[in-house]
Amino acid sequence: MRENFKELPPGVKDYLPVEAALRRYLENLFVELVAKEGFQEVITPSFEYYETLRESQSETDLIKFVDRTGELLALRGDMTTPIARVVSTKMKHRELPLKIFYAATVFSGNFSGRNKLREFKQLGIEVFGDITSKLESDLIKLMAVYLRKAKVKNLEISLGHVDILTGIIEEYELFNHFSEIKNALNQKDYVALEGIFERAGKSLTIRESLVDFLQQRGGKAILRKAKKILHHPKAQNALEELEEVTEYLISAGVRELKLDFSLVRDLNYYTGLVFEAYTPYLGYPLGGGGRYDSLLKKFGWDTPAFGFALGLERIVESIANSIDK
Amino acid sequence: MRENFKELPPGVKDYLPVEAALRRYLENLFVELVAKEGFQEVITPSFEYYETLRESQSETDLIKFVDRTGELLALRGDMTTPIARVVSTKMKHRELPLKIFYAATVFSGNFSGRNKLREFKQLGIEVFGDITSKLESDLIKLMAVYLRKAKVKNLEISLGHVDILTGIIEEYELFNHFSEIKNALNQKDYVALEGIFERAGKSLTIRESLVDFLQQRGGKAILRKAKKILHHPKAQNALEELEEVTEYLISAGVRELKLDFSLVRDLNYYTGLVFEAYTPYLGYPLGGGGRYDSLLKKFGWDTPAFGFALGLERIVESIANSIDK
Repeated sequence: MRENFKELPPGVKDYLPVEAALRRYLENLFVELVAKEGFQEVITPSFEYYETLRESQSETDLIKFVDRTGELLALRGDMTTPIARVVSTKMKHRELPLKIFYAATVFSGNFSGRNKLREFKQLGIEVFGDITSKLESDLIKLMAVYLRKAKVKNLEISLGHVDILTGIIEEYELFNHFSEIKNALNQKDYVALEGIFERAGKSLTIRESLVDFLQQRGGKAILRKAKKILHHPKAQNALEELEEVTEYLISAGVRELKLDFSLVRDLNYYTGLVFEAYTPYLGYPLGGGGRYDSLLKKFGWDTPAFGFALGLERIVESIANSIDK
Repeated sequence: MRENFKELPPGVKDYLPVEAALRRYLENLFVELVAKEGFQEVITPSFEYYETLRESQSETDLIKFVDRTGELLALRGDMTTPIARVVSTKMKHRELPLKIFYAATVFSGNFSGRNKLREFKQLGIEVFGDITSKLESDLIKLMAVYLRKAKVKNLEISLGHVDILTGIIEEYELFNHFSEIKNALNQKDYVALEGIFERAGKSLTIRESLVDFLQQRGGKAILRKAKKILHHPKAQNALEELEEVTEYLISAGVRELKLDFSLVRDLNYYTGLVFEAYTPYLGYPLGGGGRYDSLLKKFGWDTPAFGFALGLERIVESIANSIDK
């Protein structure tokens, strides 16, 4: 027998009673809050066909296995794809907007780097149907309300839009550099970003103006500046949407808001507004979400969609860190 | 892309809102009940080293995979082994008896036959330390109380002891037929059982008396009969334990009880009392448990242990069946 059979492999954890109780409390808090807002739970299996799950995730992120009948299966890497499959195939005739919640374990094959866990729990919602800016604002507010109730300290919500980047790519003809730019933004690596613009043959003035622009964070004032720099219609529409949602949120008392033009999310399915929740007590986001209007088409239902997911381990870690300090 | 990427593979299920809500209600009901009785939750990972998990399960029942570092991992097939690992390595210095509960997803690679699901949720408890007959009775009662609160109809609890079989094996020198006999008992196949006794060279009288004995179900009266047939000290001790626990349970108002001398459970780690919960609205047990005094030694803590697990899908199915009828 192996020496380490009494230990856990890296990237997974046991939760002893104190932490387990906190996790259960935080999950119940979430469930009660979203149920009161009319969300209904859907449960999907931990694993399903690899072909289904790779709709949203890169191959290396999924934990795959072959079952005894020779089928290639994978552990789910997020809940958005399985929920998209369920609602498209089994729930599209229900009353819209369809409001779904989940509290589910997801898995990652890639456990080096900042996402060190191979198994983690996500609390999230997804909405399908006609989604207005007002509804988007209500859902971002719902996330903020939950995180406040969970006693996450110094909460901050970043708000961006994928068409800011799309507009820049099209206006400045950077089509061949899309993934590179997205990766650099994801890592907030502005030095790498300027390097990419330079290799793409952009002048120093344009480079500096773009890098400076993409580093902007703040309130409604930076939207006015942005409108002068970005001329592509996609970017202009994105800025208008951001303005509308920001106004709704401010009037709804969500003061944790910060516009962030560099916000792009890891997953490929977002098509509009994107947002993330942060606290200074954690080196990575608590979670986030956004608009995804193309994913469900693949499962046979052409409908707009919007959702967010929060990492339960991240919430617990941020609470623990804020108590220590 | 595959044709079936919109479908689920066999052996796993989606749970839509009505059923998901019932599952959550039943889990919360369990958690509230056992928490009130002083049980504390422990959460373990969905997968860990194959070497750890195969302590209790046969190779073919586990879903295995190799991770990107080349380690052989497996999805947990039950919670008793992971909990045994956690308490032995991280909790043995706590106050005893240590009372743990879990509500966790477990997996099976073998999804043909009566256990058709490859993923299912178990609600269970485990107790470690000095375990008296009184404590065993209290825990069996706890299971009954939960199932009554869950509105499982016509509940029946079978009670047996692994040393009934051990005693028979030793008294009648059937050592080479242990697994065969256990399998036949598990399937309640008394024709096969007589065949085994015949091949072992037992006389017609012994064969008939043993098969007749192993088919007995009932109350305390059958214990008296059993004492006349089984003479091996292990079996005699088992009968005394059964008598004690039966008396406790009857005086505690658990009238759903039925002694069953053929009760042996699928898992190999049981060493004493075993029990299962049934309802006529389901063709297989809702769950069960028993005493296991050798498993924890393998993880470095030599302590008696006792526990039970209930299948959430089975509870839901039995409730649905009892409403239909």
